[in-house]
Amino acid sequence: MSFVDRHRTRLTLQQAGLDALVIAEPEGFRTISGVSQGVAALFRRAGAGFAVLPADPTIPIGIVIGDLAIEGARKIIPDTRAHPLWIEHAVLGAGEGPIAPRVAASWRSAGRPTDFGRPATFDLRLALAALTDVLADRGLARARLGFDFDYIAASDAEAIRAAFSDAVLVNGSAAFDRLRMVKTTPEIERLTLALELSEAGLRRLAESTLEGHGVEDLHDLFRLGIEEAAAGRGLPAPPSWDYISIGPEPWGAGGRVTHGAIIKADVGCVVDGYSSDTSRNYVFGAPTREQMEFHGILEHAFDAGMEAIRPGVPLKAAHHAATAALASAGLAGYSRGHFGHGLGHSLFSEQWPFIAADTEVLFEPGMVMAFEVPIYVRGLGGFNLEDQFIIEASGPRIMTTLPRTLQSIGR
Amino acid sequence: MSFVDRHRTRLTLQQAGLDALVIAEPEGFRTISGVSQGVAALFRRAGAGFAVLPADPTIPIGIVIGDLAIEGARKIIPDTRAHPLWIEHAVLGAGEGPIAPRVAASWRSAGRPTDFGRPATFDLRLALAALTDVLADRGLARARLGFDFDYIAASDAEAIRAAFSDAVLVNGSAAFDRLRMVKTTPEIERLTLALELSEAGLRRLAESTLEGHGVEDLHDLFRLGIEEAAAGRGLPAPPSWDYISIGPEPWGAGGRVTHGAIIKADVGCVVDGYSSDTSRNYVFGAPTREQMEFHGILEHAFDAGMEAIRPGVPLKAAHHAATAALASAGLAGYSRGHFGHGLGHSLFSEQWPFIAADTEVLFEPGMVMAFEVPIYVRGLGGFNLEDQFIIEASGPRIMTTLPRTLQSIGR
Repeated sequence: MSFVDRHRTRLTLQQAGLDALVIAEPEGFRTISGVSQGVAALFRRAGAGFAVLPADPTIPIGIVIGDLAIEGARKIIPDTRAHPLWIEHAVLGAGEGPIAPRVAASWRSAGRPTDFGRPATFDLRLALAALTDVLADRGLARARLGFDFDYIAASDAEAIRAAFSDAVLVNGSAAFDRLRMVKTTPEIERLTLALELSEAGLRRLAESTLEGHGVEDLHDLFRLGIEEAAAGRGLPAPPSWDYISIGPEPWGAGGRVTHGAIIKADVGCVVDGYSSDTSRNYVFGAPTREQMEFHGILEHAFDAGMEAIRPGVPLKAAHHAATAALASAGLAGYSRGHFGHGLGHSLFSEQWPFIAADTEVLFEPGMVMAFEVPIYVRGLGGFNLEDQFIIEASGPRIMTTLPRTLQSIGR
Repeated sequence: MSFVDRHRTRLTLQQAGLDALVIAEPEGFRTISGVSQGVAALFRRAGAGFAVLPADPTIPIGIVIGDLAIEGARKIIPDTRAHPLWIEHAVLGAGEGPIAPRVAASWRSAGRPTDFGRPATFDLRLALAALTDVLADRGLARARLGFDFDYIAASDAEAIRAAFSDAVLVNGSAAFDRLRMVKTTPEIERLTLALELSEAGLRRLAESTLEGHGVEDLHDLFRLGIEEAAAGRGLPAPPSWDYISIGPEPWGAGGRVTHGAIIKADVGCVVDGYSSDTSRNYVFGAPTREQMEFHGILEHAFDAGMEAIRPGVPLKAAHHAATAALASAGLAGYSRGHFGHGLGHSLFSEQWPFIAADTEVLFEPGMVMAFEVPIYVRGLGGFNLEDQFIIEASGPRIMTTLPRTLQSIGR
């Protein structure tokens, strides 16, 4: 199932003057097609797969992938073309005799050309030959094509430009970023589920943290909560990530839970590639006056930034509001690159656009983002207050449900 | 600590006609410098870091990284230049009063320019400005520079070419691959330790697999063995990866251990980024005649390929030998892209060069590689026999110590 909105695609590509996007990045490929590039994606080189997304919504999506995953892919995208990967495979033929001929029958019946041989890994030129067919069948052989040149390596881009000298090739990465900035219903469902499981992990961490625990123990509690919540819904536990710190050193991995220790848990769960992102801060036992005072500043800046977020307002407004609130609370000089970012299917949990000082992009209904106020102070601790939210017509709807105050745990 | 041999660097870069390599890829950056690019590397975009490796061994390595990791980096590479990341941080100043001014003192004393502001993530132009200084100080401003254009995105390469219009920029990826193809002592130490821990994991898996276990259980046993072995050496357990299959479907994740089930465990441990790679096949209970017969073919092909491996022989010789052995055993038509690959610090466990049909590269003392004969047969199971080895002057020394036969477990 494709995760893109073809109507929005048409508008976005028309504005960018593109007839189609051709996306090689594994995450973007899956967003467009719903298909995974499989093991070939691990090299992160162009050719593992290409997804063709035409501006015209009446022209179907087509993809090129390695031959290992062709069967499953065609059930999702009927027009899937394959090129050979390095991995040989077979189907055991029926019979009772020696095993080797029953395996080899698989290759004899494959209809391979006489000079068939698999490349060392995969061959960009063979992938481009298949892509040529996908484009030609869509009348895009001489079209204006936006490749994701923010992903494709410079040396591969040269080979791609040479293969499509009849078309006009431009960098389509910015247009693709604008397209996927607004999430579709299946994307919002995945980001919602990811957050719910992640919050179950944080609840378990808050309930079960004990004196003497280290970062690994808290990681295990977070995972346990996710696994329990997933099992309760009859789902396999999805991957997750966590940046947990304990005590006064924000980046020290050796912190131990002691009375009064500050704990920061910046975490996410990843459902079908879509990562949630939220952060909470805890203190083991009673908080000190200093911790209360500092966390209060974060909460105040969080509220100030969040108040600036509404449809039609530029993202930079929330950056300015949070920075001003921190300065007025005594943290003049605090300079953060961004106070949040898009969420979606991306390599890193942070997806364009960013809530940065110079981001002119406007908040728009359907955007799912994280808003965060992180401050890392050596000698005091790591702190980050971060919520996931969705922009609706009436304003932002915060999806994170956990209390935002500095929570005292372990009592 | 740098993992490269400066003498070999000089020879390799002279052959390629390069005055220096400039490497952006996080793994290559760390191989050259011993420094991690840190969180900025998660975006996998050029600018997170650059490592400059001059051909002339009397000119020191210099690096550019984000400012968050500058202190630790300078202890390893004295000439480290920084550019600002999006992450703000501070050191708590001494005193007893309110907390905000004691934190803000950190920024007042930082000597920042009046227009200081952090970019949304990081700014390639600022990284290139720092890189310009590193190159100029080494007399490399007008030199012939090999950037890793197999990694750097096409759009970033354009910005890089514009910034260094006085120098000659070429794709240095192939030269860098040839350089790191031969491992240095610290690299061999890491690949040795990684393999030893990984074998402990496989031993634990073989000892403790029970009827009814699934892939996740076998994964947990593999991890347990690694953790036990690491703890026994007083080390933290390193990351690991595993491709485990159970039963007749090579890629089905739902297999369960039953009597007669085939189990394939293709696994690795990752020490300081250096990944081991080895694979063994097991049967739960007594093997069937078919399983014995098929595994015997793999063993025969493994021996045939391994016999072809010695210094001065092209890698393709081992590919030809293994393919011929499989064909003569009845598996005519089997076409595998590669029967092994280099090992090292890379994103995926497979590093160039590949034991492929057309690889003219010669085996050379100091190369650490994996040799493998994988066959995936739907209806029979996944099989892979894979050893890690190092080329020595007298021939290959196999580093994997586990028996290579089809092992019967669970009895």
